[in-house]
Amino acid sequence: MTGPAGGLHTDLYEIRMAASYLRRGMTGPATFSLFVRRLPPGRGFLVTAGLAECLEFLEGFGFGEADLAYLRDEVGLTPPDLAALGRLRFTGDVHAIPEGRVAGPGEPLLEVTAPLPQAQLVETALLNFTTYACAIATKAVRCRIAAPGADLVDFAARRTHGPDAAFATARATAVAGFAGTSHVASARRFGLRPVGTMAHSYVLAFPSEHAAFRAFAEDFPESPVFLVDTYDTVSGVRTAIEVARELRLPDSRVGIRLDSGDLGALAVAARGLLDRAGLPRARIMASGGLDEFALARLTAAGAPIDAFGIGTRVGVSADAPFLDSAYKLVEYDGAPVLKLSTGKVSSPGAKQVFRGAPGVPDVIGLRGEPCPAGGEPLLVPVMRAGRRVGGDGVGEARARLAADVRWLPDAVSRLHDPEQLEVRPSAAVRELTEQLVRRYRAAAAPA
Amino acid sequence: MTGPAGGLHTDLYEIRMAASYLRRGMTGPATFSLFVRRLPPGRGFLVTAGLAECLEFLEGFGFGEADLAYLRDEVGLTPPDLAALGRLRFTGDVHAIPEGRVAGPGEPLLEVTAPLPQAQLVETALLNFTTYACAIATKAVRCRIAAPGADLVDFAARRTHGPDAAFATARATAVAGFAGTSHVASARRFGLRPVGTMAHSYVLAFPSEHAAFRAFAEDFPESPVFLVDTYDTVSGVRTAIEVARELRLPDSRVGIRLDSGDLGALAVAARGLLDRAGLPRARIMASGGLDEFALARLTAAGAPIDAFGIGTRVGVSADAPFLDSAYKLVEYDGAPVLKLSTGKVSSPGAKQVFRGAPGVPDVIGLRGEPCPAGGEPLLVPVMRAGRRVGGDGVGEARARLAADVRWLPDAVSRLHDPEQLEVRPSAAVRELTEQLVRRYRAAAAPA
Repeated sequence: MTGPAGGLHTDLYEIRMAASYLRRGMTGPATFSLFVRRLPPGRGFLVTAGLAECLEFLEGFGFGEADLAYLRDEVGLTPPDLAALGRLRFTGDVHAIPEGRVAGPGEPLLEVTAPLPQAQLVETALLNFTTYACAIATKAVRCRIAAPGADLVDFAARRTHGPDAAFATARATAVAGFAGTSHVASARRFGLRPVGTMAHSYVLAFPSEHAAFRAFAEDFPESPVFLVDTYDTVSGVRTAIEVARELRLPDSRVGIRLDSGDLGALAVAARGLLDRAGLPRARIMASGGLDEFALARLTAAGAPIDAFGIGTRVGVSADAPFLDSAYKLVEYDGAPVLKLSTGKVSSPGAKQVFRGAPGVPDVIGLRGEPCPAGGEPLLVPVMRAGRRVGGDGVGEARARLAADVRWLPDAVSRLHDPEQLEVRPSAAVRELTEQLVRRYRAAAAPA
Repeated sequence: MTGPAGGLHTDLYEIRMAASYLRRGMTGPATFSLFVRRLPPGRGFLVTAGLAECLEFLEGFGFGEADLAYLRDEVGLTPPDLAALGRLRFTGDVHAIPEGRVAGPGEPLLEVTAPLPQAQLVETALLNFTTYACAIATKAVRCRIAAPGADLVDFAARRTHGPDAAFATARATAVAGFAGTSHVASARRFGLRPVGTMAHSYVLAFPSEHAAFRAFAEDFPESPVFLVDTYDTVSGVRTAIEVARELRLPDSRVGIRLDSGDLGALAVAARGLLDRAGLPRARIMASGGLDEFALARLTAAGAPIDAFGIGTRVGVSADAPFLDSAYKLVEYDGAPVLKLSTGKVSSPGAKQVFRGAPGVPDVIGLRGEPCPAGGEPLLVPVMRAGRRVGGDGVGEARARLAADVRWLPDAVSRLHDPEQLEVRPSAAVRELTEQLVRRYRAAAAPA
C-alpha cells in the first residue's frame, strides 16, 4: 500500500487555481473535455492511446507529506490550503473512447467529471499521458498499413524521449499490430514478445565475422538472426550461409538482418543467395531509419523482406511529434461554458461521439442525446467515483484498431496527403454553442 | 537501500549478447563511444545534456530477482547465464563532456570503458537518456538566443513524451537559461523556480472575468498574472486594470498573459492600455505555440513582451525530435575496432575532443594524444570503477553553456540556416582509421 502520489506532476497554476477554488468553496461538479483541436499535417485520423496510464494516475492521485511541505515552503500555500490538498483524492467519473479506436479532430477522447479542484489538478498529467501516446499509436498504425504482409517489430527504446516513452511506444505499437518489441521491460510489463538479434559491436568483438556468427548460432540455435552489414552486406550473407551449413541449422530457424545501404536491392541479393544455398525459408529482416513511407516504398517494390525493425521515427512520431491537444472546462455546476479565444473557441457541455457506417461522418453530440439509429456511442464509462470500471488489455485494443482501420475510408487511411476523418457537431451542440456565444458577446459589449 | 535496477530497461539483443560474452569469458575491457553522427537540418551545434541520468542509472544498474525470473521463463537463459547476470554491476569508467557544453557532429559525448558485457548492456539506456535530452537542450538554447532580453519559462509538461521528458525538459531549459518551470515536480527535484499564472478554466468557472480576476488577485496578491484572452484580449486587459485599481495592487506586482491571436500587436495594445492606466511596470507575458523562430520575429518587431511561456515545441524539440545518435564499440581488449557499414563508418579508439579559440575547428583526437597548445580537452572523468566522481548541478551547467554560446561563431549560433560547428579528426585518428580499413578490406577480399 503506497501513499497518494503524483500531486506535483502538474503545472503550478493548477495547484494555485485548486487552492483558490478550495478557499472559495467552489467544489461543484466540473466536466473537462480532452480533445485534439486539429490533426497535424499528413494525418487523416488519430488512434486513441494512453488511457491506462491516465486511469492508474487518477486512482493513485494525491499529495504526500513531502509534496505538501514543498508547497508550504516554496509556493507559499497556507495551512488551510495544505490541509484541503492533503485530503484531496480523485473521486470523479471518467468517460473515454477505449484504447485502439480511430478518432477525428475535436472529438473528446476523455471527459472528466469531478469536483472542480480535482478535475483541474489532473489536467497536466492527463494531457501528458494522452498526447504523445496517441501521436505514437497513430504513427505506428500507419506503418502497419504500409506493410500489410510483413512482421513489424518495435526497436525504438534507444531514442524515445525517456523510459516512459519506451513503454508507451511498445504498448502503442503492439496495439497497432506489431509482432514484438526489443524493449525487455516493456515486453515484461505488457506481456509482449521480446525480440532481438545482434549488434555490430558483437561482430567487432570477435576476431572475424565468421567467428561471431558461429558463436551466436551456437549460443542461440533456436533462432539466430545474423547482422550482415558490419563489413560488407553481401559477404556477410555468405558468412551467414556458411555458418548455417557448418552447424546444420534448419533454414526455418535462420535469419539475417540488413541495417544499412539500399535495403530493397540488398534484400533481393540476399534472397537470391539464401535460396541458391538451399535456405529458402531463411528470413530477411530490415532496419535503419524506417518509417511508413520507407515501408510503403519497399512494399511497392516487392522487396523480399519478411520483417522490419522500426525504431526512432515511430518512437518519437518524427513528422508529428505532438498533437494540438486541449483539456477544456465545458460544464461547471450544471451550466455549460465555453471560451472564445481567437482560433481556439471551445464547445460547451459534456459530450458523446456517435459513429455510423463507413463514410458517414462522426457526430459530436451532447452526452444526453439519443444515439442515431445504427450508430455507436464511442465514449464509455471507464471510471466511477475514482475507481476503474471494466477495462481491458492490449489484445482487445489491437482487435478494435484492426476493425477500425478496416472501417476507415481509403482516402482517410492512405499515407500520402490523406483526407481528414469527417466530424460534425450535432444540432444540439451547434445550438448550445451559438446561444452561449451570443450571451458572452452581449455581456462583453461596452456598457 | 534499494536493490539493483534497470537491467531490463534495455533491448533484448544486449542481454543475449552479454550472455554470450559471459559464457565465452569475453569480459576484457571494452570502450564504447556515444556520439551524434550528423546534426539534424537547421542545427549548427548540439548542447550536452542527460549525463546525470546516465550516471545515476549506471550506479544502480543490475538485475533484480524478478528480472532474472523473467529472463529464465520468457527469454530462455540458462542457470549459469542468470547467475552471471545476477552478479553483474557496472564497475567501469566513464569519460564525458559535462552538461551544458556545445558540441559538434561525431564528437564523443560520453565514453564507457568496462568489461564487455557491462558496457554492452547499458547501451540502450545511455542512448535513451542522452539523445532526447541533448535535442531538447539544443532547442532550448536556441530560444534563449532568439529573445535575449526576455524571461523565458518552461511550460512544456503537458505535451512532453511522458513524465520523464517533463523532468528532462525542465532541467534542459534551466541549463539553457530559462527563469523557471511550470512543472512543480521538476522545480522541486532540481531546485528551480516554479512559475504559473491561471488557465481559461479558472475564468470560466466564475460568473464573469472580473469576478475571476478579482478572486485570483485576492488569493495571490504577491504576483497575480491575469490570463486576458478567454473572451476578448483587449477587454481582458481592461478588466485586469480595473481589478488592479480596485485592489490597489502596485503595478510592479501585476502581470497579464496573452495566449492567442497576434501576440505582437496585442502586446503593443496591452502596453498602451497599461501605461495609460498608470501601470507602466505591469509585466506582459506571452504564450501559445512559441518556438525560437516566433521569439525572434517578436523580438525583431520590438514587441513589448517581458516574458515568454514556451512549451510544446521545445519540450518535444518539434523540428528535430531525435538525433542520429550511436553507441559504438571502438576498442576491445586493447585493440581498436571499427565498422564499415554503408554511410555509418565508425572511428576506432578511445577519444578526446580538443577545443581551441573561437573559430578554430574542434579536433577529435585519440585519448592519449597531447592537447594542442591553448586547447581544452572537453571530456573529463565522471565515473571511476562504477562511482561518480566530481559532478555539479544545474547552475554550473548553465554558466558553462552561457560561456560556450558566446564562444560559438555567429554563423553557427544563428537560428536560420546555420553553419555546422567545424570538427576535424586528428592525424592520429585518421591514420588509425585508414590502417584498420585497409586491414579489414584485405581480410574481406575473396580468397
